[in-house]
Amino acid sequence: MSKIRYPLSINQATTRKQWTLRQAIEGYARHDVRGIAVWRDKLDECGVDEAARLLSDHGMAVTGLCRGGMFPAADKAGLQAAIDDNLRAVDEAVAIGAQCLVLVCGGLPDESKDIVGARAMIRDGIAAIAPHARAAGMPLAIEPLHPMYAADRACINSMEQANDLCDELGAGVGIAVDVYHVWWDPYLKREIDRAAKADPQRLLAFHICDWLSPTTDILVDRGMMGDGVIDITEFRSMMEDVGYEGYAEVEIFSTRWWNTDPDEVVVTCIERHQSVC
Amino acid sequence: MSKIRYPLSINQATTRKQWTLRQAIEGYARHDVRGIAVWRDKLDECGVDEAARLLSDHGMAVTGLCRGGMFPAADKAGLQAAIDDNLRAVDEAVAIGAQCLVLVCGGLPDESKDIVGARAMIRDGIAAIAPHARAAGMPLAIEPLHPMYAADRACINSMEQANDLCDELGAGVGIAVDVYHVWWDPYLKREIDRAAKADPQRLLAFHICDWLSPTTDILVDRGMMGDGVIDITEFRSMMEDVGYEGYAEVEIFSTRWWNTDPDEVVVTCIERHQSVC
Repeated sequence: MSKIRYPLSINQATTRKQWTLRQAIEGYARHDVRGIAVWRDKLDECGVDEAARLLSDHGMAVTGLCRGGMFPAADKAGLQAAIDDNLRAVDEAVAIGAQCLVLVCGGLPDESKDIVGARAMIRDGIAAIAPHARAAGMPLAIEPLHPMYAADRACINSMEQANDLCDELGAGVGIAVDVYHVWWDPYLKREIDRAAKADPQRLLAFHICDWLSPTTDILVDRGMMGDGVIDITEFRSMMEDVGYEGYAEVEIFSTRWWNTDPDEVVVTCIERHQSVC
Repeated sequence: MSKIRYPLSINQATTRKQWTLRQAIEGYARHDVRGIAVWRDKLDECGVDEAARLLSDHGMAVTGLCRGGMFPAADKAGLQAAIDDNLRAVDEAVAIGAQCLVLVCGGLPDESKDIVGARAMIRDGIAAIAPHARAAGMPLAIEPLHPMYAADRACINSMEQANDLCDELGAGVGIAVDVYHVWWDPYLKREIDRAAKADPQRLLAFHICDWLSPTTDILVDRGMMGDGVIDITEFRSMMEDVGYEGYAEVEIFSTRWWNTDPDEVVVTCIERHQSVC
């Protein structure tokens, strides 16, 4: 059924405990993985110019910069600070040639129970940075996060909601689809189809890992592809059916894999990627 | 804004480590809590006839029997065994005068990645027991569970999906709305309104507790009302707006509250219930 193999990228969060950005670039390239997603704390540590040089020297596609977002704040000054930080993130993404800036949109402000208000702040925050991102040619990728992160990481929690937000915000705003966050969604196919139909550029990234059953930790127990219950092959077919042509980016937050030799992690990513994507 | 106070029921899971069914009935009644939801393992231990007598003697409304469901199975024999067990559960619910049989619909069978197939088995399973339940006058309450339980407990994970299933299955099948499972849903109000509009009897139960942030365990770290981020008062207003007239049932799976003196748990439930419902 599937016709193309999505090239492999590795999100450096997958080896974040073992490797700096330089080590990750060199390490992934050593195994001929030529896609990487970069995290801002690692980028800051390395320096943007040096990182850009290393990425270019190793022929790495940068499938995303993680992360912008985190808009909801207790007051207007807090929201403005988040907007300012996101504007800098757009510039950093441009500087390293990222394919998109990934937005982990943010959860509830401290002491707040107002999820409707938090969602409005997310919309306002993205709207505030979108003109700069559009002018810079940097797509903004809203990443719907699993509903178990609604309180503290992102209260954009389904493809439908992300699509609604994209419809409202217009060109230059799309979606990063992560199997871990949305695999459970009964309306997944409907909303993937809707995204591509609304804007062939809307599906900006495709993240893969697996959902372990049982899952023992909400944050750091994501699984390697094949170790869990997600039908990734079926999922990738939904992406292919609507014309997605980017990378398959492995992003695994996992104590287990962080305690594994990083070259072994990369080799395992390569093997498992080939079996599912 | 709110006009009525939903009477308090306590789901005996809230004190399941401390109390047998007899102790729970006596304990709740001692604090003048006259609603209880019963679990089948506790009911079995007590005996159905004895339980029915105790419940009646203490004037307890039984806001639900937990639980039917768990339909998806590796083969047809497994599905049939689940159906047979659910038919018995209907009879038990009738015997103790429960207002509904709560369905925790079930997750993926062992080794399966077929969530679409699991959902079909759930539909088929409920369809198979619905005639008996209707004849017995026992409403079946589909409980959408939080998406983090999709793999191992229930792959009915949103109000929209539960409404779709109710539309398909017809009269006698409704929904148990638990704030813990659906508080994050951006389409919550739309779907509560839809449920009541489709069938004024569809909203069969209203379960309350809270979402702690951070949540340290996927299963047993639910919060007491007021200790988390859910705007329960706003939520109950959505239920009132569509004419829900049942109980507010406290259901808390929590190591913390299981390690607390059960009378203190009940008193806390009463206080917190008064502050939010």
